[in-house]
Amino acid sequence: MKPIQVGLMGLGTVGSGVFHVLTRNQTEIQRRAGRGIELAQVSRRNLAAAREIVGDAVQIVADAREIVANPDIDIVVELIGGTGIARELVLEAIAAGKHVVTANKALLAVHGTEIFAAASAKGVVVAFEAAVAGGIPIIKALREGLTANRIEWIAGIINGTTNFILSEMRDKGLDFDVVLKEAQRLGYAEADPTFDIEGVDAAHKATIMSAIAFGVPVQFDKAHVEGITQLSAIDIRYAEQLGYRIKLLGITKKRDAGIELRVHPTLIPSKRLIANVEGAMNAVVVQGDAVGTTLYYGKGAGSEPTASAVVADLVDITRLHTADPEHRVPHLAFRADALADTPILPIDQVQTAFYLRLRVADEAGVLSSITTILADNDISIDAVLQRESADGEKQTDLIILTHDTIEGRMRAALAKMQALRTVLAPIVSLRKEELA
Amino acid sequence: MKPIQVGLMGLGTVGSGVFHVLTRNQTEIQRRAGRGIELAQVSRRNLAAAREIVGDAVQIVADAREIVANPDIDIVVELIGGTGIARELVLEAIAAGKHVVTANKALLAVHGTEIFAAASAKGVVVAFEAAVAGGIPIIKALREGLTANRIEWIAGIINGTTNFILSEMRDKGLDFDVVLKEAQRLGYAEADPTFDIEGVDAAHKATIMSAIAFGVPVQFDKAHVEGITQLSAIDIRYAEQLGYRIKLLGITKKRDAGIELRVHPTLIPSKRLIANVEGAMNAVVVQGDAVGTTLYYGKGAGSEPTASAVVADLVDITRLHTADPEHRVPHLAFRADALADTPILPIDQVQTAFYLRLRVADEAGVLSSITTILADNDISIDAVLQRESADGEKQTDLIILTHDTIEGRMRAALAKMQALRTVLAPIVSLRKEELA
Repeated sequence: MKPIQVGLMGLGTVGSGVFHVLTRNQTEIQRRAGRGIELAQVSRRNLAAAREIVGDAVQIVADAREIVANPDIDIVVELIGGTGIARELVLEAIAAGKHVVTANKALLAVHGTEIFAAASAKGVVVAFEAAVAGGIPIIKALREGLTANRIEWIAGIINGTTNFILSEMRDKGLDFDVVLKEAQRLGYAEADPTFDIEGVDAAHKATIMSAIAFGVPVQFDKAHVEGITQLSAIDIRYAEQLGYRIKLLGITKKRDAGIELRVHPTLIPSKRLIANVEGAMNAVVVQGDAVGTTLYYGKGAGSEPTASAVVADLVDITRLHTADPEHRVPHLAFRADALADTPILPIDQVQTAFYLRLRVADEAGVLSSITTILADNDISIDAVLQRESADGEKQTDLIILTHDTIEGRMRAALAKMQALRTVLAPIVSLRKEELA
Repeated sequence: MKPIQVGLMGLGTVGSGVFHVLTRNQTEIQRRAGRGIELAQVSRRNLAAAREIVGDAVQIVADAREIVANPDIDIVVELIGGTGIARELVLEAIAAGKHVVTANKALLAVHGTEIFAAASAKGVVVAFEAAVAGGIPIIKALREGLTANRIEWIAGIINGTTNFILSEMRDKGLDFDVVLKEAQRLGYAEADPTFDIEGVDAAHKATIMSAIAFGVPVQFDKAHVEGITQLSAIDIRYAEQLGYRIKLLGITKKRDAGIELRVHPTLIPSKRLIANVEGAMNAVVVQGDAVGTTLYYGKGAGSEPTASAVVADLVDITRLHTADPEHRVPHLAFRADALADTPILPIDQVQTAFYLRLRVADEAGVLSSITTILADNDISIDAVLQRESADGEKQTDLIILTHDTIEGRMRAALAKMQALRTVLAPIVSLRKEELA
């Protein structure tokens, strides 16, 4: 049988990984897929740079639209990124009746509804394993491996850059700014790291997982997003003393009232497996009502790890595109006509525990006034750590861990505590999850 | 559309889990599968006991053959276990044109070739996610998630009973026999625990993973199998001091000369994520040439975790049975006509590092005579730990960690060391893997 024909738009880091993996492992891939998978055409503005990568084996075009227009191409791989031209090209490829494989989380988190609807109407597949957690087959696990379950929650380290930075901050006791520069020097952070360090990239991925887990449309605009730029080394140290690590987590949970969807630095118990995921590695914990806790770990980025996911999607399509479109795995795990309109909860209604660090005057009654405010807001305390004042100082750090509460209550309590005369600096509050 | 009709043979722990999960989550499952999945018939000799579980909702028969003969049944779930009647029933169900879902690792590890051939000839699916690592979707990850890769090796904690025992031995410093009794009392080990503690269950699972990873037929008879019954608390303690934990691992590796397939207690670095998998939990590490290291963690046994995998297979079949049989995911990941005849290597040719504990006379020249034997056999030493003799004793423990070697060489060296006058007790040798 003639090999299935693939066109690749955007021959950068991941694109060259796809070329190398398809070339190096073509025998094994064909033995698995039952049919060859041939990279027939690639696009990149800089033709000479592209030639450097693929040699004479593949036709190179400067304009990605040539790939979309090529009637011989069965599957288009979109690795351009962003939500502008990539959206247009993906929609045009679908309109041309081509299957699409993409690693573009921003595109799907923001325009997924439009794209999946177009694909369903045309009877083509849009596959996106590479969009979340790189080489880890987490989309497959959620869409196919855990279909028996009501998913209860997902919590993931889904941005390698920030996990590298947090690992270094903890390891070396350094502050954020210092480690960011180091990460940039080593290539773990980009020159403009905003999307990573502000949590936007993780929120794109969490949005996609949330939709798949709970059978709702992608709604990136409803996600609550906080990054790690405000995090201090001292809070990492206090957390450690209390038996916790701080990780940037993408979290989504099903509650009676709706769905939580949030990205923020989070204290998690040091003894959890996911707390021990260090450096640029990714890991996702999924809690299902039947299976209990499962965890998926691996490289979340990089040329060949991401290519591994892209090529797996190519094999999936090669194997299964003959299936009646009505019976294929639905894009968002649930059939499009069975998606729910469960609301995404505003951050005020989220339930979580908190870590608070207060710089307080070292005088009688301080702890009492603070705990009274917490009690008045129905927030119960799990642990308190009060440092002795340093010599000659009249102030100290007071650390409080709370039990689960409604975030709105905590915000009300924080405002009152902040107004106390004895609270001498802005209160640091971080969310805490037991993940059990 | 009429719900797909399922017959369940063997309504025990896992079977009742399947009933409960299908019942409780039927709405979510239908939203995912696009079609209802209905448990139409179950078999169990004790009809009254079955009635206790499924009530009046499901037809109960005493003879599983009634399910195989029922023309309304689309998918048969085999949860009887063993390689006798289960094999006959599975083959009869296939002959009757039914898809089969099974959790029976022994059956597939021993009779997989016959069963998969029969299924392919009939154009039906035999699905077996539940056969390896319970609720963890590791079969799906290997067969579909990592298809881009040449798998280099797999190492898994794939037997919860033994992992529970090893965790307790380490935690409490107790010996095997004591902990086994405790595990039996708690229900973590069966009254006859032979299959678990002798490594047979893990070897069944490793055999299946090995076939899927490397595209070879299942060959359980070629697996090297050692259990944990000979393991002493003192070796767990010494390993700990050297920065290692001891786990019962199922290991399969691709070498130039063939495939390694072995189950045995193994020292692994404490800092590896898998070294921190405690209690009855399972975890599998897969090394692929493109993706690098990935890890999959969860419950490897139990009623609903295993049912989670069984029901996921039911959803897969419901979704995809319309696909051309030629294009479905092959049973062993590689197409049946593309399986290789790569040999499984005998244990003598396996490459691994070793931990040795020698009880030696505390006199001059002992270390020299031992290291000379290792050097003569081309085995290089990674670390040596020699304890001072206890007061008044004239003997001591000598611990040696080696670098990778060929097991045959180590066996030759062990024979020579054992023959030394200064070696006072049987030498303990355990394999060590860096898993990096």
